[in-house]
Amino acid sequence: MSITAPRGFRAAGVTAGLKTSGNPDLALVVNDGPAKAAAAVFTSNRVAAAPVHWSREVVKDGRADAVILNSGGANACTGPQGFQNTHSTAEKTAAALGVSATDVVVCSTGLIGEQLPMDKILAGIGAATAALSADGGSDAATAIMTTDSVSKQAVFTGADAAGKEFTIGGMAKGAGMLAPGLATMLVVLTTDADVQPEMLDVVLRDATRVTFDRADSDGCMSTNDTVVLLASAASGAVPSAVEFGRGLTQVCAELARKLIGDAEGASHDIAIRTFNAASERDAEVVSRAVARSNLFKTAIFGKDPNWGRVLSAVGTTDAVFEPDQLNVSMNGIQICRNGSIGDDRNLVDLEPREVLVEIDLQAGEAEATILTNDLTHDYVHENSAYSS
Amino acid sequence: MSITAPRGFRAAGVTAGLKTSGNPDLALVVNDGPAKAAAAVFTSNRVAAAPVHWSREVVKDGRADAVILNSGGANACTGPQGFQNTHSTAEKTAAALGVSATDVVVCSTGLIGEQLPMDKILAGIGAATAALSADGGSDAATAIMTTDSVSKQAVFTGADAAGKEFTIGGMAKGAGMLAPGLATMLVVLTTDADVQPEMLDVVLRDATRVTFDRADSDGCMSTNDTVVLLASAASGAVPSAVEFGRGLTQVCAELARKLIGDAEGASHDIAIRTFNAASERDAEVVSRAVARSNLFKTAIFGKDPNWGRVLSAVGTTDAVFEPDQLNVSMNGIQICRNGSIGDDRNLVDLEPREVLVEIDLQAGEAEATILTNDLTHDYVHENSAYSS
Repeated sequence: MSITAPRGFRAAGVTAGLKTSGNPDLALVVNDGPAKAAAAVFTSNRVAAAPVHWSREVVKDGRADAVILNSGGANACTGPQGFQNTHSTAEKTAAALGVSATDVVVCSTGLIGEQLPMDKILAGIGAATAALSADGGSDAATAIMTTDSVSKQAVFTGADAAGKEFTIGGMAKGAGMLAPGLATMLVVLTTDADVQPEMLDVVLRDATRVTFDRADSDGCMSTNDTVVLLASAASGAVPSAVEFGRGLTQVCAELARKLIGDAEGASHDIAIRTFNAASERDAEVVSRAVARSNLFKTAIFGKDPNWGRVLSAVGTTDAVFEPDQLNVSMNGIQICRNGSIGDDRNLVDLEPREVLVEIDLQAGEAEATILTNDLTHDYVHENSAYSS
Repeated sequence: MSITAPRGFRAAGVTAGLKTSGNPDLALVVNDGPAKAAAAVFTSNRVAAAPVHWSREVVKDGRADAVILNSGGANACTGPQGFQNTHSTAEKTAAALGVSATDVVVCSTGLIGEQLPMDKILAGIGAATAALSADGGSDAATAIMTTDSVSKQAVFTGADAAGKEFTIGGMAKGAGMLAPGLATMLVVLTTDADVQPEMLDVVLRDATRVTFDRADSDGCMSTNDTVVLLASAASGAVPSAVEFGRGLTQVCAELARKLIGDAEGASHDIAIRTFNAASERDAEVVSRAVARSNLFKTAIFGKDPNWGRVLSAVGTTDAVFEPDQLNVSMNGIQICRNGSIGDDRNLVDLEPREVLVEIDLQAGEAEATILTNDLTHDYVHENSAYSS
């Protein structure tokens, strides 16, 4: 169900013919209201795709009626023609739904630097509109897949202070940033809670900061990343920011874990938790430095608890710590104590897919966890063997 | 010849038994004067090895009589015992040479987090001292190799204003930072020019900034990197800073190219030149961002001229540029023009080992080039298949 689990939404996923595989490649999500509140966050990459430029403007007024998403082409680095194609996509969708084009969010994912086949997209929009259904969430989640091996969905149900239930649904695509051609992370979140745009925006930024922003599969930032949240108010529930934020963060965290868990070529899902840091920012910086060390990532692929590679990555940061007070554990074994040799590294079991690396900075009380993957033969293969 | 090409130096390389392979693993370089001027640069990693801590102090007064280097163990993250072992190494070397321990630079390279077998090192120092010779440069260059497939040496000969000749020699080890166990970059440079320590320091920092600092094989900074320069004044030549700097930069650049050219697992040597930048710093930041993109590096391995991955890396930087004014060429073919589709990507020939990526920011007149490698199956294999 995912994005159609909340009341007030319809969705569809159809085959427009953009993918040579013949798999579904066009998804449409419509908010039937009564409210049309929306918020979104986008890639911070300065080389942003045409649909990112378009959609940033769409959500500025806190309203969106629909999201149209295509896989099979990123529409990035495509010049004025690319922007025109995004505009046409929004206009065609708006006409089919009887709404304004400036209330239609557009998302694209696939190869950078090629124009979209607009005849196929425009025809597909008609088919998607005809296929819209209150249980179309799974079809939409399937249509946005590129190299994903499974569709990714999540649902949360909560209640406001009056006991009135509300639901948050979400779908995501992308394999971290590991996907060939930077076929990037797209996320649509829906809710039937009655939440004003300002609060939607604040809560969405809070939730993504500690979930998607901390999923760092290969350190490569894409041109198309978009997370959009639509609220219909169809449940009548009016949750507090805290209650709504808790649910939203839970949905985002589940989708983030699913993205990392399906990262192409990966054989380990690695959580890097830095604790006893002077600040949350320090903890995040340290965890991310380790998550971006190719030497650390290849060691985990080789099931080698190489804590020297962890320390050498930690040492590149400006976080508060003393080198001779660093502790490192892997899957519960403290192999580095006070910056030097700790327990027997042979005690560390790296056979399981899940790996927990814990870095104790002994510098404060803050912590943060970054999710990443190992660097494998299959990663190299999938990102080199064909133009993508 | 390399480091013994300049007059006033002797060197040796012997087998102390640190490597299980039985290959040479202990090198000694001695400056017989008449001057004993020295300068050095070290890793900026805050988790620095014991020999780095020691050697930083040694060169502070601008004098060093000898450099003792071992492969087969990094002596990093080894606590107080590790520092004591470095101290003992310097003292034993000093006693054998009749100099002060505080004038002996110590370098180590190999696996992090293990104590050195000091009995073997101390015995080896005696053997190395006995083997010292005015043509021992190549033996020393061989003894510092870890996973290097060839030893790396370079020589420059120049003249001062009076026409008096001087020579600069150099040896290096390490495969970028690609080496298993962070068996890191060590460089010893020698000269028979008469150069004061203050000028040595300035010229060495200038030379390394545009050579070794711009060789970025896999973005992983090590705990042991050391570049040390010894000047004997034995030639009597007194070159200007400009003339000496030119020669030193040439030697460092040649060694940097040899490091990148021997990077483990690499199948392409990639020069990323950013030009028309607002500042040299901008050009360096942009080139380095591309050099650190795993998606770009796997694409080059796959002989895929994927300029979208170049732009997505450029877009993560804060350099001055407009996204719709970026131009990118690969091996002479301009595949991206004004941020959009340029010439036919099929015209790009990525069969040769040498790859030149040129990024035109259209924002100024500065430029910088970073040398890197592609990301290959062999890189993953060599850094994961065995504990190192």
